Amino acid sequence: MTLISADLVQTHNDQCLPALNEDYGHLAHSLKRRGIDVDVVKKHLARFELAQPSWGVGVGGTRFARFPIAGEPTHLEEKLEDCAVVHQLCRITPRVSPHFPWDKVSDPRALRDQAESLGLGFDAVNSNTFQDAAGQKLSYRHGSLTHSNPAVRAQAVEHNVECIRLGEALGSKALTVWIGDGTNFPGQQSLSASFDRYLESAAQIYATLPSDWKMLLEHKLYEPAFYSTVISDWGSSILAAQQLGPQAQCLVDLGHHAPSVNIEQIVARLHRFGKLGGFHFNDSKYGDDDLDSGSINPHQLFLVFNELVEAALRSPDTFAPAYMIDQSHNITDPIESLLSSAEAIAGAYARALLVDRGALQQHQQTNDVMLGFQTLRRAYNVDVTPIVAMARYEQGGAIDPIGAYRQAGWRTSKAQERRVSTGGAGIV
Amino acid sequence: MTLISADLVQTHNDQCLPALNEDYGHLAHSLKRRGIDVDVVKKHLARFELAQPSWGVGVGGTRFARFPIAGEPTHLEEKLEDCAVVHQLCRITPRVSPHFPWDKVSDPRALRDQAESLGLGFDAVNSNTFQDAAGQKLSYRHGSLTHSNPAVRAQAVEHNVECIRLGEALGSKALTVWIGDGTNFPGQQSLSASFDRYLESAAQIYATLPSDWKMLLEHKLYEPAFYSTVISDWGSSILAAQQLGPQAQCLVDLGHHAPSVNIEQIVARLHRFGKLGGFHFNDSKYGDDDLDSGSINPHQLFLVFNELVEAALRSPDTFAPAYMIDQSHNITDPIESLLSSAEAIAGAYARALLVDRGALQQHQQTNDVMLGFQTLRRAYNVDVTPIVAMARYEQGGAIDPIGAYRQAGWRTSKAQERRVSTGGAGIV
Amino acid sequence: MTLISADLVQTHNDQCLPALNEDYGHLAHSLKRRGIDVDVVKKHLARFELAQPSWGVGVGGTRFARFPIAGEPTHLEEKLEDCAVVHQLCRITPRVSPHFPWDKVSDPRALRDQAESLGLGFDAVNSNTFQDAAGQKLSYRHGSLTHSNPAVRAQAVEHNVECIRLGEALGSKALTVWIGDGTNFPGQQSLSASFDRYLESAAQIYATLPSDWKMLLEHKLYEPAFYSTVISDWGSSILAAQQLGPQAQCLVDLGHHAPSVNIEQIVARLHRFGKLGGFHFNDSKYGDDDLDSGSINPHQLFLVFNELVEAALRSPDTFAPAYMIDQSHNITDPIESLLSSAEAIAGAYARALLVDRGALQQHQQTNDVMLGFQTLRRAYNVDVTPIVAMARYEQGGAIDPIGAYRQAGWRTSKAQERRVSTGGAGIV
Amino acid sequence: MTLISADLVQTHNDQCLPALNEDYGHLAHSLKRRGIDVDVVKKHLARFELAQPSWGVGVGGTRFARFPIAGEPTHLEEKLEDCAVVHQLCRITPRVSPHFPWDKVSDPRALRDQAESLGLGFDAVNSNTFQDAAGQKLSYRHGSLTHSNPAVRAQAVEHNVECIRLGEALGSKALTVWIGDGTNFPGQQSLSASFDRYLESAAQIYATLPSDWKMLLEHKLYEPAFYSTVISDWGSSILAAQQLGPQAQCLVDLGHHAPSVNIEQIVARLHRFGKLGGFHFNDSKYGDDDLDSGSINPHQLFLVFNELVEAALRSPDTFAPAYMIDQSHNITDPIESLLSSAEAIAGAYARALLVDRGALQQHQQTNDVMLGFQTLRRAYNVDVTPIVAMARYEQGGAIDPIGAYRQAGWRTSKAQERRVSTGGAGIV
Repeated sequence: MTLISADLVQTHNDQCLPALNEDYGHLAHSLKRRGIDVDVVKKHLARFELAQPSWGVGVGGTRFARFPIAGEPTHLEEKLEDCAVVHQLCRITPRVSPHFPWDKVSDPRALRDQAESLGLGFDAVNSNTFQDAAGQKLSYRHGSLTHSNPAVRAQAVEHNVECIRLGEALGSKALTVWIGDGTNFPGQQSLSASFDRYLESAAQIYATLPSDWKMLLEHKLYEPAFYSTVISDWGSSILAAQQLGPQAQCLVDLGHHAPSVNIEQIVARLHRFGKLGGFHFNDSKYGDDDLDSGSINPHQLFLVFNELVEAALRSPDTFAPAYMIDQSHNITDPIESLLSSAEAIAGAYARALLVDRGALQQHQQTNDVMLGFQTLRRAYNVDVTPIVAMARYEQGGAIDPIGAYRQAGWRTSKAQERRVSTGGAGIV
Repeated sequence: MTLISADLVQTHNDQCLPALNEDYGHLAHSLKRRGIDVDVVKKHLARFELAQPSWGVGVGGTRFARFPIAGEPTHLEEKLEDCAVVHQLCRITPRVSPHFPWDKVSDPRALRDQAESLGLGFDAVNSNTFQDAAGQKLSYRHGSLTHSNPAVRAQAVEHNVECIRLGEALGSKALTVWIGDGTNFPGQQSLSASFDRYLESAAQIYATLPSDWKMLLEHKLYEPAFYSTVISDWGSSILAAQQLGPQAQCLVDLGHHAPSVNIEQIVARLHRFGKLGGFHFNDSKYGDDDLDSGSINPHQLFLVFNELVEAALRSPDTFAPAYMIDQSHNITDPIESLLSSAEAIAGAYARALLVDRGALQQHQQTNDVMLGFQTLRRAYNVDVTPIVAMARYEQGGAIDPIGAYRQAGWRTSKAQERRVSTGGAGIV
Repeated sequence: MTLISADLVQTHNDQCLPALNEDYGHLAHSLKRRGIDVDVVKKHLARFELAQPSWGVGVGGTRFARFPIAGEPTHLEEKLEDCAVVHQLCRITPRVSPHFPWDKVSDPRALRDQAESLGLGFDAVNSNTFQDAAGQKLSYRHGSLTHSNPAVRAQAVEHNVECIRLGEALGSKALTVWIGDGTNFPGQQSLSASFDRYLESAAQIYATLPSDWKMLLEHKLYEPAFYSTVISDWGSSILAAQQLGPQAQCLVDLGHHAPSVNIEQIVARLHRFGKLGGFHFNDSKYGDDDLDSGSINPHQLFLVFNELVEAALRSPDTFAPAYMIDQSHNITDPIESLLSSAEAIAGAYARALLVDRGALQQHQQTNDVMLGFQTLRRAYNVDVTPIVAMARYEQGGAIDPIGAYRQAGWRTSKAQERRVSTGGAGIV
Repeated sequence: MTLISADLVQTHNDQCLPALNEDYGHLAHSLKRRGIDVDVVKKHLARFELAQPSWGVGVGGTRFARFPIAGEPTHLEEKLEDCAVVHQLCRITPRVSPHFPWDKVSDPRALRDQAESLGLGFDAVNSNTFQDAAGQKLSYRHGSLTHSNPAVRAQAVEHNVECIRLGEALGSKALTVWIGDGTNFPGQQSLSASFDRYLESAAQIYATLPSDWKMLLEHKLYEPAFYSTVISDWGSSILAAQQLGPQAQCLVDLGHHAPSVNIEQIVARLHRFGKLGGFHFNDSKYGDDDLDSGSINPHQLFLVFNELVEAALRSPDTFAPAYMIDQSHNITDPIESLLSSAEAIAGAYARALLVDRGALQQHQQTNDVMLGFQTLRRAYNVDVTPIVAMARYEQGGAIDPIGAYRQAGWRTSKAQERRVSTGGAGIV
């Protein structure tokens, strides 16, 4: 399977390189004046890894509509192909996170080989008990892991166990559990009994976890349930993770919080209690909008990475959260959105790495509020584009990924080959 | 076409009547002590009318899933049947609001006759340019009435004009225009040019409006667009309505506002400027949750009706807003939700009618804050169930609509007759 | 010290009693039809107790202004007098919660005697390290229990220890710790180090706690800190309480949460983990508005009590949360607001007691969503005014507390006796 | 009166200049590659002007506390002195916005001369009817311009008229009217009558406006009123401004909106209808937090300036909004916060000027969503620090204003001279 031609990327890079060299050179010089070695930052970026969701290369939608585009992938093989193009160009997205039963295949070993031939591996597997799969025996209409009927709970547990087995075959090391369970009406369910049932079901899944796996619990304030959600916030999530055991950790999705909540502090709290397991990156203005990372509030993304860098400094040996992009690409070419988002995320990380930690600590110690703030702001203000681009280039990627992608005409040529997908409301 | 057996309803009522008579009698006595004539309230309730949305009798869903139920309607004829059952039992929902092209029929006259035979008429027609219909020439992926391409705008205008023509055949008197147009990214569109294009397109629709019609503009803060929405708030809506002319009015959907906004004051403002055209009733806790009216915040619903009663007193001759239920019934039997919501809405209206307006005005004049508040609270605290039930009973409905509906076994019997609907993500 | 004349209350009650008897009688009859014994509800109400905050009888304000009223209390003795009037009339507010150093006296024993002579006891003591007291050595400008300077932390700890000592002399059994510590700027402080310092300081206070005392940790999303707050949510609060030990519990203030958060579920979670220690009742529409309980969202108050009743049923022997009104009475006579709020809180409790728990459980078990909801709604719709009034009357209070209070002319007569208080911004 | 020594600033600049020249030079080179002339941007910055609020140089507080600092100004003369220092160092804040009666003086002419000698002029005057001034006849406890008592309204109107007279003497050209009028309880006031009274009172003020003045109406969602606010949103504001006449315009304060509202679109709407009169800059995370501009959401500030630049391009001859910083400096040296904020605001403006408008328009026309977004993002990513610093330097200011200010020891020396201010709750 051929992706984008390496020659094309090379030629494109050749055009971009002189300007990049100039900008990188001046930035290195300017940062050196402040005592920062830009190469250290670049080295960290070279080690940074971000999973892609298999469903993220398809066009997403809302409950109102989905607007398909010509050439979008319509089955898993095509999805992997698109993921491979993303990784080919940006070099920090080497693994794909599958969603079952959406991505279910009869021969996971073959799938793994296929992915490897595209330069890809597999990341955390995602179970799905928020929809009814075709042929499913019992419905999740009224819940899954927390359903009042033990048979439904057992079915949902079984599905999660199967996801683990599939994940093992694919080389995954984590199971992400997000459930939509909750209520639309006061009185619909017992708020406390539902949580008890969650703990019971989750413990059954946890018991089947391979010893080198993590179980990532993902909370969300609301949607698809609109009055209450069983695992609605980090408080519920961490208490459940503590109950389950050391392999259970919490996963933070940036769009799953109440309005105006300080998410970076939640990051700090979860790490403080040893339960920061992973991240789903996206952005939002209103609810769980699943917009491109950093497109709405890039400063918040920086502040989150500021806490992640702090956490890594405090726990250098153990801190290894699972990072994934989790977005709904409703009106862009998904590959372009993934490339743009990977850039935004890497940029936020680069800025966080530029923070003068010694100065910051000193200003915090002396309560020099203004200089504490300015220490962060100074790093945030830096245009890190050259650093991110240089790291990418040196890893074999494209200096200007979207430019190279467009020049390659990938989507147009796929529009010739791939079958047409249908509209309808979007499932993301 | 037979609905629920009148005998069954009668028998059910006979069982409920003694208790109702007792409760109504005591309430009448107790209110008389306060100087209130309960029969006046009952008379107002008897005149109260609420439209049903044709799509509201189907099971709704979220972008994640839709969980169909056995016996739900799968085409317009069945939808009308279910609407007729709702009206048969609650007696305040005599008209159905159709949505095109969802409800498009080749012979609208025949449809009108069919509805009439079920005891139903038609209310405001709803256009749909937030989805691409099968066979549609140009896509609304990037907007409709505000699209940058004049050909798309023309197509969207044309669809609205067709809706008016269909509505005329059905006996409607209003067109409701809600568009999803907006953006997901800063920079995607010009925020000002989009609004200009809206005004231009809306003026073209307005120009084709029959002289006894209203054009209802519906605003919404977000969804399906997640960064900006062209008609996002009542400010945008009223300025557009003023520009268009006297037949253009604003429609308030209770779930389309920013968090914590005082909606009852928006009602007062719109009426103050002569632009309060109608209401979409539902309830919500987070976003546009489209939950059953009054299920989450019944007090807010009361405060809205308090303003509506005030508006009617200030403009007794002209105040005639179009009321409609607009909910997404994801996990209940839609007929039950409509019955429950009609009850909640009528109850909020009844409570607002119980407010001692003279006392209220006096306390407001003298800034007796506590007694001003208590004057509203006293009315809100009244259990108006007997008044609403008696009004319904006297209009030929069921004292206990959900009880009667269940006893009739409507859904079970329809599950035998109607074909099975499919799951997938919900469209509401 | 004489409060309101018992004769006046008696005469007032005599006028109200006939109507009350009628309404109570019919309600008892009507509820009996549903299988509910109203006397059982009344008995629960008779045992219900709610603390008054000493500062709540003064007129509150905002950062913009405070508008004093004639006759408001200007020192502790007068505050106790007003609290005694509140309790005299409503009979469910027998204890006062003092705030130090605001309420500091040289002889706490004498204060206790004085309170007892007014029929009052003392509830949880509140420490104050969010302001600088006159003559205080080190400033809390940059924090108190979490300050980067150990000397400031030690001073704040010492103040809390002193509060416990004062509380012991007054007969209190709990210390409520709310701190304003947090930041206004990203970078101002380490989000993780601040929390570590909180735990360290709190542990020092905890160590001095008498064995029959509770330490109540109160979280708040924001204000006075506007970027981050150390104990910002129930997650931070419960993790701290767990770390501290069994006497540490969480206190929920209804206005201290992010917008649209489901507070009743937080109640369920805290109880599930044995950490629901107490409540501060008030209401709000936007932020921590500190409005009168139930004035904005009475249904939410009911849903909270629904969880409290459930919790009491699950843990009949141990469940004993500390209930307190915590409001800022900016534009009403504080005594009237306290009377009105006590009524609203007791009413929410009464409604929650009316819920048919057996039916609720059954509907939840079978996922009968509509009837589960209706079971709560049916209880909520009951006008419980007669039950609350009858319980109050039988305890020796006023049937119509605000009516009796106004007739007594308390504030007018105090306006003659008490010195004038000053305006300025309000401290609440 | 001497401010900071010009020699000190010069020496400080001499140290900073070499690095600035390097960075500015490279940025000019790099931007030229993109077709942007940095000098044009710099020229726009040199013309940019921002008013300082007289109260902003004092230490602010919350309703809980105010923590004074040594050397803060305690009367108007000292405030002007501090404002002059701000302008001396940043060069874009040449005018002070006074607040009456806070800044009331017996001889406004003398005040104007004094300000001029410090290099300062006066901007819009602010009336204050949200507090009771000492000796005021009638209280604003229950409202001012909207009070139910005509005598209170007349007093409030009279105060505004006096503000205009004072403003004329000071050389102002605008009156900013912000009122706290609203309610804390449903039922407290008629929502519609309050608005009618507002219009009536405002018209009386408007009638006395000099012909070259503007009247700026400032809306705010909530606080100090917590249930409803008469002028709560831009909809109410613009309808009032339209009613009043062409000299009435709307003023946008960034912190006065409902959560998650798209403020940049409100800017576009107000300009579309010719009513964008001015701005109060600050930042916020929760409510009206009045934090330093750009400290929380610098991207939003950029997007607002993006609309302002667009507005200026559409109306080059008439667009002249009044810009002011309006912040509460609770825990920083106010002069440092003003310097930092002026930098952030100028930086946001500079970034908006860097947007390639031609490309943006083209991408919007063709619905190239990704490149439309990237066009804005590319400008936002630029580190504009060198441009802003160079513009400031060339206007005679400090390259590093906070650095120079600290080196000058201004606050320490003022702490010797000025009397100590008192704590208490803050008034901002």
